[in-house]
Amino acid sequence: MTQTWFEMHQETLEGALAASESRGCWSAYPEIPSGRIYGENARDDGMAQWKSRLGQRFEIDQPEPLEWIATEQSPYGIETGVQYPRLDVDALLAASTKASTGWRSASIDTRTGICLEILHRLNKRSFELAFSVMHTTGQGFMLAFQAGGPHAQDRGLEAVAYAYREMRRCPETATWTKRVSKTDTVTLEKRWRILPRGVAVTVGCSTFPTWNGYPGLFASLVTGNTVIVKPHPGAVLPLAITVEIARDVIAEAGFDPNTVLLACDSLDSPVAQDLVLRPEVGIVDFTGGNAFGDWIEANATQAQVYTEKAGVNSIILDGTENLRDTTGNIAFSLCLYSGQMCTTPQNIYIPKSGIDTPEGRIDFDDAAAAIVKAIDWFVSDAARAAEVCGAIQSDSTASRIDEIRSGSDVVLRESTSIENERFPEARTATPMIVQVDASSTDVYKRECFGPIVYIVQTEDTDASIRLASTTAREMGGLTAAVWSREQSVVDAAVDALTEAGVAVSCNLAGQIWVNQSAAFSDFHVSGANPAGNATLCDVAYVAGRFRMVASRTPMPAPVEAAD
Amino acid sequence: MTQTWFEMHQETLEGALAASESRGCWSAYPEIPSGRIYGENARDDGMAQWKSRLGQRFEIDQPEPLEWIATEQSPYGIETGVQYPRLDVDALLAASTKASTGWRSASIDTRTGICLEILHRLNKRSFELAFSVMHTTGQGFMLAFQAGGPHAQDRGLEAVAYAYREMRRCPETATWTKRVSKTDTVTLEKRWRILPRGVAVTVGCSTFPTWNGYPGLFASLVTGNTVIVKPHPGAVLPLAITVEIARDVIAEAGFDPNTVLLACDSLDSPVAQDLVLRPEVGIVDFTGGNAFGDWIEANATQAQVYTEKAGVNSIILDGTENLRDTTGNIAFSLCLYSGQMCTTPQNIYIPKSGIDTPEGRIDFDDAAAAIVKAIDWFVSDAARAAEVCGAIQSDSTASRIDEIRSGSDVVLRESTSIENERFPEARTATPMIVQVDASSTDVYKRECFGPIVYIVQTEDTDASIRLASTTAREMGGLTAAVWSREQSVVDAAVDALTEAGVAVSCNLAGQIWVNQSAAFSDFHVSGANPAGNATLCDVAYVAGRFRMVASRTPMPAPVEAAD
Repeated sequence: MTQTWFEMHQETLEGALAASESRGCWSAYPEIPSGRIYGENARDDGMAQWKSRLGQRFEIDQPEPLEWIATEQSPYGIETGVQYPRLDVDALLAASTKASTGWRSASIDTRTGICLEILHRLNKRSFELAFSVMHTTGQGFMLAFQAGGPHAQDRGLEAVAYAYREMRRCPETATWTKRVSKTDTVTLEKRWRILPRGVAVTVGCSTFPTWNGYPGLFASLVTGNTVIVKPHPGAVLPLAITVEIARDVIAEAGFDPNTVLLACDSLDSPVAQDLVLRPEVGIVDFTGGNAFGDWIEANATQAQVYTEKAGVNSIILDGTENLRDTTGNIAFSLCLYSGQMCTTPQNIYIPKSGIDTPEGRIDFDDAAAAIVKAIDWFVSDAARAAEVCGAIQSDSTASRIDEIRSGSDVVLRESTSIENERFPEARTATPMIVQVDASSTDVYKRECFGPIVYIVQTEDTDASIRLASTTAREMGGLTAAVWSREQSVVDAAVDALTEAGVAVSCNLAGQIWVNQSAAFSDFHVSGANPAGNATLCDVAYVAGRFRMVASRTPMPAPVEAAD
Repeated sequence: MTQTWFEMHQETLEGALAASESRGCWSAYPEIPSGRIYGENARDDGMAQWKSRLGQRFEIDQPEPLEWIATEQSPYGIETGVQYPRLDVDALLAASTKASTGWRSASIDTRTGICLEILHRLNKRSFELAFSVMHTTGQGFMLAFQAGGPHAQDRGLEAVAYAYREMRRCPETATWTKRVSKTDTVTLEKRWRILPRGVAVTVGCSTFPTWNGYPGLFASLVTGNTVIVKPHPGAVLPLAITVEIARDVIAEAGFDPNTVLLACDSLDSPVAQDLVLRPEVGIVDFTGGNAFGDWIEANATQAQVYTEKAGVNSIILDGTENLRDTTGNIAFSLCLYSGQMCTTPQNIYIPKSGIDTPEGRIDFDDAAAAIVKAIDWFVSDAARAAEVCGAIQSDSTASRIDEIRSGSDVVLRESTSIENERFPEARTATPMIVQVDASSTDVYKRECFGPIVYIVQTEDTDASIRLASTTAREMGGLTAAVWSREQSVVDAAVDALTEAGVAVSCNLAGQIWVNQSAAFSDFHVSGANPAGNATLCDVAYVAGRFRMVASRTPMPAPVEAAD
């Protein structure tokens, strides 16, 4: 049956392999939440499935839990109350280690087929996943569907494809013949097997639990490691459903379902610190804040550690061919999920002399005002604002806005709440825009997660580039955008920022935004500045998750063909 | 000119790429120290070049040294007295960082061509390198030539080939076109550049300075990192000559020669600890003892760390088709370089009931005696013993033999000195063989570097396999050999030991030994037990030494071909 899965999904795998080489636009899983693609009742069924979880225990046939805990709150203000099992760390590791015996012995094709089938089933459950992402992260429905469903599945597939290719790189056997004297040769038959690292721990985040969690989960799983998924207490359900589906597929294939385990905890009694330091743990994947990510990097030295943390993203505004288009593009980037993407810009650098346009120089104040106006226009339609901005995931993000508001002298735009018709209790906030001088590095040269934007007045664009690049080097940075009418300025920004490990978007226009990161084409996080030590997804991300170990045996010399 | 180097050596590169895929027997650099290959006068010239260094300053145009130091002693008892510059760490890092600007901007082909030319020139200097390896490490001439020259160059080439392939994996540009609505597409031109990690530090060892040093050196260099080579104070000259050649080639190509720097230190004022923790350092390659290797892994968390440490290697003797061949094979493995290879067996597990042969059961004592006898015979020819055993690299290895001798109850074979005609003052020692019971784990379950061998009497072969495998898991292990007439026993040993991350040789016979590790075919160190966290050479060894960082710019949609 699993061989059938490998064969059934082989075209998908080959598409992923080809796309990750060409790095053109490709996707295995449709991003449009359409009934024609997903089935006429898919949305209703997904909602019903999601609703059926609410207020219930999330039953999952794992080792006996210590207790059942409900840790999530919908940012949309509705009651969800799903209860999850909290397990003892020893019990988790024992079950994971026990499952390892069978899983590590499975063939590459078997494990790959199972992973592809899990992704396939996840895709069919994209609506259910979307509602679960929406009501844990606060994303609007469309983002929750796309980023939480098909785009996350693409990122998982990307990791499977990369790992599959690397596992297949070394042949399973080779004949090695060496001439050792004029008359003699030595021939060895060599055999290699894949050795996984052990137990892999995936530590999830509260904002993009599936999109950021799948790459590590699938990369570890397909390479023969057993995986313990430790969701953020505030965003458990999307990963719990994922684990449930994975366990079903693994069990159907005849393996121990504890190959993938769900490890829930609460903010009061967190488990990740204990877990990641255990000697059984050979791999840790972490997405989340820099403090804990840095701690894992420094302390879990027994494991391969892959981190995706946070940074301070920049926009360098030097000039534009079309101010309205550009400010509209910026406004959408800032509004999308109320600035809670790790790729959202935070600091917009504008020279004190203003910016260059075909209509002449626009002074600093007018350029800043144009950005404010674009946001005002965008959020003026409450339905659009509610859908695009979504809700604020955590109380701490909401209160951060107030804290920064009260400490700021020049607030160009107040954060406002959004009238959400369907969810009147939603915790919402549109972007706040604060103006600061370039000299106030203590204010803007740090991550202020959420809908908080600084417009930084700089001496000139050279200074903008320098500030953006040093901030990324020192504080981390994932994305940057530059708008300029001068190619030399664009080139200088690209040079400085890519050297700082930041992906740069140049003169974006139309339906493409700096926040977007496409599987198979864009490397997410460079791993080359404090925003993370790894990339989704490159070869380095998969190659260290397993080792090749050989045996070799002398054989009779191969017979040479007769003339 | 560098383009010419890339073109000139392209066939070598392609051969290396093909061999690392097929993993058959291949070598770019001839291992026979023959005048017909290397030139009639190559040996004399090499010796003259080496002799011309003795008692002199090793002049190298680096930043001003703090002082000149002579730290080497020939294990063959002759005066060498080469003096090396000791530099300040700040000066080293400043020079390396400065050189980085040019080196990181070079194209993949340029850097690859330069690395291939360095290897080519190293190959031509193989005799000089052989004498420098011989008189620092104590290896016999043939081993010093092969392992210190062509085999080391092959390992360097292997790293260049792996890195070249990975750098070429992502295209430099791609066009990404996405349909965003029924009528519209977005097209981005994406460009990627390679971002090196920074300064790479290669910490060399005292026994195989070039063989173990070249993979890291070349992997870092070709991927755009500048490299500081920190040799072991006892084995500087082989790496000093290497750095000299590298700097010449790099300067000829128009780059800053400080792209590769030599950092010498002494045992009294070591520099490696300071160096590897510096924030400028993005990569550390270490070969050496477990204590310092473990320390680097745990502390240099700002860098990618690749370690090759030590372990306890095993032989499992269950039976043999030909006892004399097998014991002869074992004896050679134990005598080669007097057991100072990281791949040399230390513990020979033999069941108390003896071993199985076509002539019937050989009891434990006779089996052990057969090994002793094979060594006795091997070293009975003084010239052969001197050439194969070489000399003992360090005083501490020599005194370790005495320490263990005095604490051992059953010494089956005393370590003896070797009459070395050419070097009467050579520090020599043939293998000492000590018998222990399996219960004395405190004695044999630890690394005893040098010509020290334990014959461990076990309950049965199952116990032998279990002990060998747990020892590798707990203390590290690089190699194991098993001899048995039963395929099921061989299979069980292969299973248990490869699961412990150990490369296993089965029923070796003829001119092939467990110590041997061939570039392009054998992965050296698995990275999957405490003997090291990396492999020479796999994709994981090169892929983390650089990152890909993108810029992307909207373009007009590509024109579709007319029907």
